[in-house]
Amino acid sequence: DFNNALEEVHSAFGVSEDSLQRCVEDGILHYSPTIDSCLRQTAVDVNVVRSAPGARTTSVLLHGPPRSGKTALAAQTALSSDFPLVKVVTPYDLIGMNDMAKVQHLHKIFADAYKSPLSALLLDDIEGMIDWVPVGARFSAVVLSTLRALILHPPPKDRKLLVLATTGELSALEQLGLSRAFGSKVAVPALGSLQELGRVLELADALDGQAEREKAVSLVADAAGANGGQIGVGIKDVLMAVRRAKVQGGGADAFAGEMERVMLENRF
Amino acid sequence: DFNNALEEVHSAFGVSEDSLQRCVEDGILHYSPTIDSCLRQTAVDVNVVRSAPGARTTSVLLHGPPRSGKTALAAQTALSSDFPLVKVVTPYDLIGMNDMAKVQHLHKIFADAYKSPLSALLLDDIEGMIDWVPVGARFSAVVLSTLRALILHPPPKDRKLLVLATTGELSALEQLGLSRAFGSKVAVPALGSLQELGRVLELADALDGQAEREKAVSLVADAAGANGGQIGVGIKDVLMAVRRAKVQGGGADAFAGEMERVMLENRF
Amino acid sequence: DFNNALEEVHSAFGVSEDSLQRCVEDGILHYSPTIDSCLRQTAVDVNVVRSAPGARTTSVLLHGPPRSGKTALAAQTALSSDFPLVKVVTPYDLIGMNDMAKVQHLHKIFADAYKSPLSALLLDDIEGMIDWVPVGARFSAVVLSTLRALILHPPPKDRKLLVLATTGELSALEQLGLSRAFGSKVAVPALGSLQELGRVLELADALDGQAEREKAVSLVADAAGANGGQIGVGIKDVLMAVRRAKVQGGGADAFAGEMERVMLENRF
Amino acid sequence: DFNNALEEVHSAFGVSEDSLQRCVEDGILHYSPTIDSCLRQTAVDVNVVRSAPGARTTSVLLHGPPRSGKTALAAQTALSSDFPLVKVVTPYDLIGMNDMAKVQHLHKIFADAYKSPLSALLLDDIEGMIDWVPVGARFSAVVLSTLRALILHPPPKDRKLLVLATTGELSALEQLGLSRAFGSKVAVPALGSLQELGRVLELADALDGQAEREKAVSLVADAAGANGGQIGVGIKDVLMAVRRAKVQGGGADAFAGEMERVMLENRF
Amino acid sequence: DFNNALEEVHSAFGVSEDSLQRCVEDGILHYSPTIDSCLRQTAVDVNVVRSAPGARTTSVLLHGPPRSGKTALAAQTALSSDFPLVKVVTPYDLIGMNDMAKVQHLHKIFADAYKSPLSALLLDDIEGMIDWVPVGARFSAVVLSTLRALILHPPPKDRKLLVLATTGELSALEQLGLSRAFGSKVAVPALGSLQELGRVLELADALDGQAEREKAVSLVADAAGANGGQIGVGIKDVLMAVRRAKVQGGGADAFAGEMERVMLENRF
Amino acid sequence: DFNNALEEVHSAFGVSEDSLQRCVEDGILHYSPTIDSCLRQTAVDVNVVRSAPGARTTSVLLHGPPRSGKTALAAQTALSSDFPLVKVVTPYDLIGMNDMAKVQHLHKIFADAYKSPLSALLLDDIEGMIDWVPVGARFSAVVLSTLRALILHPPPKDRKLLVLATTGELSALEQLGLSRAFGSKVAVPALGSLQELGRVLELADALDGQAEREKAVSLVADAAGANGGQIGVGIKDVLMAVRRAKVQGGGADAFAGEMERVMLENRF
Ligand SMILES: Nc1ncnc2c1ncn2[C@@H]1O[C@H](COP(=O)(O)OP(=O)(O)OP(=O)(O)O)[C@@H](O)[C@H]1O
Ligand SMILES: Nc1ncnc2c1ncn2[C@@H]1O[C@H](COP(=O)(O)OP(=O)(O)OP(=O)(O)O)[C@@H](O)[C@H]1O
Ligand SMILES: Nc1ncnc2c1ncn2[C@@H]1O[C@H](COP(=O)(O)OP(=O)(O)OP(=O)(O)O)[C@@H](O)[C@H]1O
Ligand SMILES: Nc1ncnc2c1ncn2[C@@H]1O[C@H](COP(=O)(O)OP(=O)(O)OP(=O)(O)O)[C@@H](O)[C@H]1O
Ligand SMILES: Nc1ncnc2c1ncn2[C@@H]1O[C@H](COP(=O)(O)OP(=O)(O)OP(=O)(O)O)[C@@H](O)[C@H]1O
Ligand SMILES: Nc1ncnc2c1ncn2[C@@H]1O[C@H](COP(=O)(O)OP(=O)(O)OP(=O)(O)O)[C@@H](O)[C@H]1O
Ligand SMILES: [Mg+2]
Ligand SMILES: [Mg+2]
Ligand SMILES: [Mg+2]
Ligand SMILES: [Mg+2]
Ligand SMILES: [Mg+2]
Ligand SMILES: [Mg+2]
Repeated sequence: DFNNALEEVHSAFGVSEDSLQRCVEDGILHYSPTIDSCLRQTAVDVNVVRSAPGARTTSVLLHGPPRSGKTALAAQTALSSDFPLVKVVTPYDLIGMNDMAKVQHLHKIFADAYKSPLSALLLDDIEGMIDWVPVGARFSAVVLSTLRALILHPPPKDRKLLVLATTGELSALEQLGLSRAFGSKVAVPALGSLQELGRVLELADALDGQAEREKAVSLVADAAGANGGQIGVGIKDVLMAVRRAKVQGGGADAFAGEMERVMLENRF
Repeated sequence: DFNNALEEVHSAFGVSEDSLQRCVEDGILHYSPTIDSCLRQTAVDVNVVRSAPGARTTSVLLHGPPRSGKTALAAQTALSSDFPLVKVVTPYDLIGMNDMAKVQHLHKIFADAYKSPLSALLLDDIEGMIDWVPVGARFSAVVLSTLRALILHPPPKDRKLLVLATTGELSALEQLGLSRAFGSKVAVPALGSLQELGRVLELADALDGQAEREKAVSLVADAAGANGGQIGVGIKDVLMAVRRAKVQGGGADAFAGEMERVMLENRF
Repeated sequence: DFNNALEEVHSAFGVSEDSLQRCVEDGILHYSPTIDSCLRQTAVDVNVVRSAPGARTTSVLLHGPPRSGKTALAAQTALSSDFPLVKVVTPYDLIGMNDMAKVQHLHKIFADAYKSPLSALLLDDIEGMIDWVPVGARFSAVVLSTLRALILHPPPKDRKLLVLATTGELSALEQLGLSRAFGSKVAVPALGSLQELGRVLELADALDGQAEREKAVSLVADAAGANGGQIGVGIKDVLMAVRRAKVQGGGADAFAGEMERVMLENRF
Repeated sequence: DFNNALEEVHSAFGVSEDSLQRCVEDGILHYSPTIDSCLRQTAVDVNVVRSAPGARTTSVLLHGPPRSGKTALAAQTALSSDFPLVKVVTPYDLIGMNDMAKVQHLHKIFADAYKSPLSALLLDDIEGMIDWVPVGARFSAVVLSTLRALILHPPPKDRKLLVLATTGELSALEQLGLSRAFGSKVAVPALGSLQELGRVLELADALDGQAEREKAVSLVADAAGANGGQIGVGIKDVLMAVRRAKVQGGGADAFAGEMERVMLENRF
Repeated sequence: DFNNALEEVHSAFGVSEDSLQRCVEDGILHYSPTIDSCLRQTAVDVNVVRSAPGARTTSVLLHGPPRSGKTALAAQTALSSDFPLVKVVTPYDLIGMNDMAKVQHLHKIFADAYKSPLSALLLDDIEGMIDWVPVGARFSAVVLSTLRALILHPPPKDRKLLVLATTGELSALEQLGLSRAFGSKVAVPALGSLQELGRVLELADALDGQAEREKAVSLVADAAGANGGQIGVGIKDVLMAVRRAKVQGGGADAFAGEMERVMLENRF
Repeated sequence: DFNNALEEVHSAFGVSEDSLQRCVEDGILHYSPTIDSCLRQTAVDVNVVRSAPGARTTSVLLHGPPRSGKTALAAQTALSSDFPLVKVVTPYDLIGMNDMAKVQHLHKIFADAYKSPLSALLLDDIEGMIDWVPVGARFSAVVLSTLRALILHPPPKDRKLLVLATTGELSALEQLGLSRAFGSKVAVPALGSLQELGRVLELADALDGQAEREKAVSLVADAAGANGGQIGVGIKDVLMAVRRAKVQGGGADAFAGEMERVMLENRF
């Protein structure tokens, strides 16, 4: 029946390495030193949880503009931690639950994590979990309050927990008093320079050869001029522009056209 | 009984080619190059979904002023895609459901789509689905949040999904943070120039012969003067003005009178 | 019992010619060319629905100041249409229903209309149906959203439907985005000139003879001076002033006194 | 049990002459021509309902400052009408009902009235019925909307109904769009002049003899000086001041002291 | 079980002389003529209810700054009235009830009082009963509206009722339109002058002898300088400062230190 | 099943010395005279409750910036009181309860405390209990109102109760009118001077020896320059910085880097 049908689709538990892998489907391209720096920072959190005796919960918030790679970097951190228990929760998992059911679901996720001596939870897109809407600053107060209490709560004796969370709305979380509940914060920026763009195209082996890639970068450079030289496009959008250009059978021109469209939309 | 009676009227599933056809009942008149450009853009989305290996969801938002032909163009795109599964959802389908039922209905629509390897969903009039009301910026937060999560969620392995959506309230969706969830956006404008109007009348074989049509265009031109030369009337309203004139047994004068009335109402 | 008692009072269905007749109890006095023009406009809608093949729904909104005769003119249009199925819905019919029940009631009214090949619905006082309150711009969002979806929805194949609606709050409906759902709009004004007033008194055979009527008009003229010469009183209030004067056994003076009181109250 | 206990206290029906009498417990003192004028105005409404063939509902709103005698004058009008069915509803009758129950109660009151060919309803303190609160302009939208629909609804064939309502918050009802639903309005003022005060004391046979009453009036005159010569105290408060003075065994001084206190409190 | 456990704690009825006594646990210190004046004013209300034939309800509101002795003075009035039935209601009694249950509880309290020919109700801390919160002016509209209707309602024939109420938020009650429902108002001030403070210390036999008390007063005088010479501390806080000083084993200095802390906190 | 699983995690009762101990896991470092002063103030409350005959409830609010040690100091006070019954309540304990259940839980906690002649309750993080959200000043009005009533309510005869509460949002509690319900308030500051920082490092035996600690302090001094010489970091964050530095294998530099990051984040 209907409920069974839905359960097939998102079984609440057993979220695991498989779903973490799907978050980094296109791999992590090391197109800039920032990428390494982000991963180094989250690694400290992993190690504090693992080794320091007194620090039982540590929580870290990855924040940045849309499609900048936040989810992929958080998932990569969790995968590299080698913790025995790692789980992902996304807004999609909470669809169709009323607020009370969401709260119980999240509570249970943490309670289950407390059963393992060492675990990590990836709370992906937390503004989505609290149904944040910018206009009128609306959100689910009870889910917000639950997340805050769960993140702040020290786990029981001999249990250690790392909370990794991502958000595209840092300033919202600041207004809501939720960002303050996190032990540390890591910024995940969009692509900035043309050099970074060139490196992405190279690492992704996009377009037909180096010459075409250089042409693409220089075409984007023209458009970026209007943008103060900044690209300001997330890695996920860059990789999509590569795909859209390919489908149109086009080369550097098609790619630059797609990039221009995204840059224009981002400006609003 | 009552529930049966309602079910006859809108059976949730089995929405199909038939209902898509009804969305383009008056066909697509190619009265301007913009029409072709719109259809070319949505075709790229169709092809990215169909052929690119890594891009499993693509979503496109068709936006424009009232009665400009958004629904017809989205339906035409879906019809031309030849995807094995294509479904339409409109606010009418959600009448009489409470918010939770709407959420489960939408969730099920997506879950069903995930069962087919390649499918397209047409979410028609999404501001209507979230009960958007401009005054006081009111809306259903939970339906909004569900739509956002569904559109952003990557489908399961080996599944591909194209989401086509239409809206007459782009700026509302921007405020609500929903437009950002779409991979690309396509603008569907109202009729602009008198030339376009003439072409519509010709393609629709409206009024009695070319002379009468030309007279109609020149009468509208006078009214458009007050409008800065712009017509600013959607294709759907133009075709209705043709019908109203016909019913009154009138020719160019009756048509121009109807156009004038619509142009006046649009100004407010 | 209680529910039975209520059902006696407003049986949801079977609303018919009888209730339409009650809406025009005092007949339609043709006291001004505007009256004819209003009825001519709504007749076009009737004919578009009846005869044009492609236009399956047409909706028209009659709007104007309080007691100007909106309901009577809409009812007269429906009566003259000779459509096989004509129904009236008013806020009174929805009393005691919660929002969900109202939505289902309205949905059923439309679903029933879709069963007849040609029907008309008169939605009387739609701001009352959505519980509109000017202060704080409050209203029932779900009823509003349902009305919008019902009015916009094309009926099933081979079904034609004319929606006639009345409102005393056009600007509210504009703010709420509901007026835009209507295909056309017709303004129903209050009495403007003294000449119109004289014509009403004559057609209604009010007061004792022509001399007394002329005296009444000239007494009202004095009061109207403060009003910039405008009367600004709806036909329904004029007919009530006639009755109040009669009860007091008074003639022109009593009538003018009542008119003055109404004009004063209207000014606020 | 508990519900029984409550039912003893306010049995919903059978409200009758007895409860009307309690509203004018201290009689109607004809201390000013305004009192007669108010009663004359409401008598026209009574007669329009009784005798005019076409006017089936008439509604009149008595408004004025706190404790000015609104309820007593409305009750007196109903008592004098000699209509076969007269009922009173007050906010007290609605205590403990949720909004839906209030709506059904009011609906039933009107439905019962429709069973009699000629009836009057006294809706006492309608701002209390809709839970009006000035700060933030809060109120029960559904009760408001129901009252509006009930007052506007024409009764069934051959039924006539007079609605008498009282309010201390006319401007609130104007903002809420409810005052507009009434056919006519009557203002009930507080005591204005010292002469009126003297007349009240005399008619109520207050204090010890004429000399003491004159002294009282002249003492109040001093206090009223600060008030611009206006008393601005409702008849109900004046009669209470008489009682408080009596309890203290005091004469003119005690009375004037009490009046001064009330005048001071009214100023805020 | 749980509900039993709670019932032990606050049995809704049988609130009586015992609980009144607890409200004046530290007695009434007659440290200023204001105290006598307050009690004299409330005594008039007691007598009006007792003896005047026509005045069946009288209600009085005691208002003042926090901890100024409002509850104690109201309780003392009720104790001195010697009415056969006296009951106290506080926000604590309403804990755990939803709004509807609160309304029914209050309704029952009044209904029970109507069973006795002569009774008094003490509604202690009415802003607490309506869940008043200053920020955003939030409160329970239905409880507010019920209290208003109960206080305004005349009791049945041959029943007399005195309503005593206390509040620390007079201006809130004014905004909410509730203060206007009371027949009279009595202000209960905080301690004003140093002389009053000295009298309190003396009457309470605080500190070690007269010399220490005089020293205390003069130390407080210094701190009060910054306060414009005003103390502005309620009697309840003064008596607590006496206790805190005693616990610290300190004399005048400790007392003055505590007073200073309270005066500082009051300033914000 | 699910409910059992949750119950394992937080059994509502039996919260005891063990959970108090966990609140001061890293002990109390006496790094400044303020610490002693705070503990001395709360000790007076303990003694007033224990020994003064008439003061049956005393309540104290510990407030300060995030992570300044509020919870640890309140727990230490409770531990040192040697009261026979001591309980802790935190927002975590209330997760998954609806507002009514929270209210009943809190009510029961107090009712249970009233059973013991002498008890202390630690309400930790009360802004979390009322779901306080700064944006839009949202909160649970019913929980707020319940806490206020519970804190103000005098316990039954021969019962004494000390309420210890902590908050990081004093100004919110002031706006909400809750801080006023507390008998006294104690401020818990963050680390201010470099000297205090040096003392913490020493008492915690952090870093490798005195020289490294001095280097750390002087590196932090540079960063603090930008901060006006103020550190403004809570003791909990300082101890975490010590751990993060240790995990990175770093000495004074790593520690100073972590401190700098926290100081930067605190500035927003
Ligand atoms: N250096 C990188 N950092 C992050 N992601 C990368 C990097 N290189 C490649 N990717 C790929 O880019 C995509 C990043 O998408 P991701 O969903 O993580 O972005 P996001 O910021 O979470 O987006 P959203 O704002 O929609 O949540 C992934 O497919 C990932 O495999
Ligand atoms: N070039 C065109 N583009 C779109 N529609 C066209 C075109 N030519 C003719 N039509 C016809 O015009 C009508 C467009 O109506 P449609 O419902 O798509 O407009 P819409 O913008 O969705 O209106 P609404 O704002 O009410 O949702 C359809 O009947 C369609 O068959
Ligand atoms: N020319 C006319 N147009 C409309 N109504 C007329 C006309 N002549 C007479 N009448 C009578 O006037 C009355 C108009 O009342 P009606 O209820 O239609 O007004 P309304 O504008 O709908 O009022 P409301 O604002 O209260 O809804 C009816 O009784 C109708 O028979
Ligand atoms: N001329 C008068 N008009 C009205 N009431 C009068 C008059 N003379 C005496 N009374 C007495 O004064 C009292 C008026 O009280 P009433 O309850 O009608 O005032 P109200 O304006 O309805 O007060 P509230 O604002 O509290 O509703 C009644 O007891 C009535 O018998
Ligand atoms: N003259 C006095 N007036 C009032 N209370 C007095 C007086 N003298 C001594 N007291 C004692 O002072 C205390 C006053 O406390 P009470 O609870 O009445 O204050 P309150 O104003 O109601 O406080 P809150 O604002 O918290 O409701 C009581 O214990 C009472 O016995
Ligand atoms: N002097 C001190 N005062 C308080 N806590 C101290 C002190 N010295 C060491 N600590 C330790 O510092 C930590 C303080 O953390 P605590 O949870 O009490 O802070 P908090 O202010 O309640 O934080 P939050 O704002 O997150 O509620 C505890 O682990 C405690 O053992
Ligand atoms: Mg993401
Ligand atoms: Mg459309
Ligand atoms: Mg009407
Ligand atoms: Mg009244
Ligand atoms: Mg009190
Ligand atoms: Mg804490």
